[in-house]
Amino acid sequence: MNLILLFQEDFIDGANHVRLQGRRLTHVREVHRAQLGDEFCVGILSGRIGAGRVTKLDSSVLEMEVWFEQAPPPKLPLTLILALPRPKVLKRVLRSASSLGVQRIILINSFRVEKSFWQSPVLSSEGLREQLIIGLEQARDTVLPEVLLRPLFKLFVEDELPGLIKGALSLVAHPLASDPCPRDIKQPAALAIGPEGGFITYEIDYLLSRGFIPVQIGKRILSVETAVPALVSKLF
Amino acid sequence: MNLILLFQEDFIDGANHVRLQGRRLTHVREVHRAQLGDEFCVGILSGRIGAGRVTKLDSSVLEMEVWFEQAPPPKLPLTLILALPRPKVLKRVLRSASSLGVQRIILINSFRVEKSFWQSPVLSSEGLREQLIIGLEQARDTVLPEVLLRPLFKLFVEDELPGLIKGALSLVAHPLASDPCPRDIKQPAALAIGPEGGFITYEIDYLLSRGFIPVQIGKRILSVETAVPALVSKLF
Repeated sequence: MNLILLFQEDFIDGANHVRLQGRRLTHVREVHRAQLGDEFCVGILSGRIGAGRVTKLDSSVLEMEVWFEQAPPPKLPLTLILALPRPKVLKRVLRSASSLGVQRIILINSFRVEKSFWQSPVLSSEGLREQLIIGLEQARDTVLPEVLLRPLFKLFVEDELPGLIKGALSLVAHPLASDPCPRDIKQPAALAIGPEGGFITYEIDYLLSRGFIPVQIGKRILSVETAVPALVSKLF
Repeated sequence: MNLILLFQEDFIDGANHVRLQGRRLTHVREVHRAQLGDEFCVGILSGRIGAGRVTKLDSSVLEMEVWFEQAPPPKLPLTLILALPRPKVLKRVLRSASSLGVQRIILINSFRVEKSFWQSPVLSSEGLREQLIIGLEQARDTVLPEVLLRPLFKLFVEDELPGLIKGALSLVAHPLASDPCPRDIKQPAALAIGPEGGFITYEIDYLLSRGFIPVQIGKRILSVETAVPALVSKLF
């Protein structure tokens, strides 16, 4: 937790005092081993970042005087389209994508996605938000990525995707592609990554018919949790 | 498991027949749902990769006829120097670095590394090997990265490190650096990544005095498991 993320309901006595309990209190006491007077990086959800000075601290409550000085880091103009990974992996990928500054994450179905994955509690708004916030706290960001769940592949690719990726360089990671993944692009992009075992031909063809370009990143097949930071970092 | 890694002791009746039990048998039966006659990608530890055809399969044993056709993918000429992360994170980082093709991983001590991390069973030769093999199986590689454990920071940096990184572009990830991490380098490199909370000034200065160049990757602080694939993929 490199930034303590604050919410409207944390504020007491105006705009410069907060009271925290629960997970953030525990973290600040046990990991940062905070003392009265210590300063920490703070940020307000969807807003500015700054610092907070501890004014009260015991086992049940942490109070800080806070002030805000600067904008959060800019988002990457990237829509990440992921075949839904299994829940344990999904949690790590959400944290990682959130910390990298991905603007929008779309979780889609694919032939090789197990149906049971769609029942995971990680996909509830609470569950998603929890992981995304851990990513923001890691990276010192305050702005949640947008997450869309789209369990109907064909309907999504036909009806909604074209509007979402308009004007973006649209890429699909594909081991059989001949073009390497481009580097250091200075434009909005969409990047689709398949499930373990890859998209099936029908799905790849569907994405290609919507203007996606297949790109590869060498002979090595990477797990989705390694592929996401590797590809995002290559693109931006 | 995109490749079934084979060891000398798996071979029966000469160089083209193997018998597998345990983890690999279970995986091939339950995940790949193998049938007699199915073919899988196989590779021999430190050797060539090829294919195997299932000739016998029941709940206790898998036998395959195997043949080998090509060299494994080349390694990245990279020495990754990591402040030892906590064991759960270490396992994921080892798998990820192994799948990315990192040639050598050096786990070092740092002021902010908890002493107890050095007692983890993940650091036994067995424990390291288990995670590295999962990375190889993921990426279709057969060659284990070299792993060195160096719990004495100063002694290591003074006595051994200069020899290990001779001729390599040596970089240390550092949030306060002014130079961005270079991209697409075509030369051997060493990359040092600090612990949660970063290297302390003394440690950074020590690395700089040995010729390391501080580089940053933007305002965002990444966890080591996100930073490793992000930085490796930027460099190569």
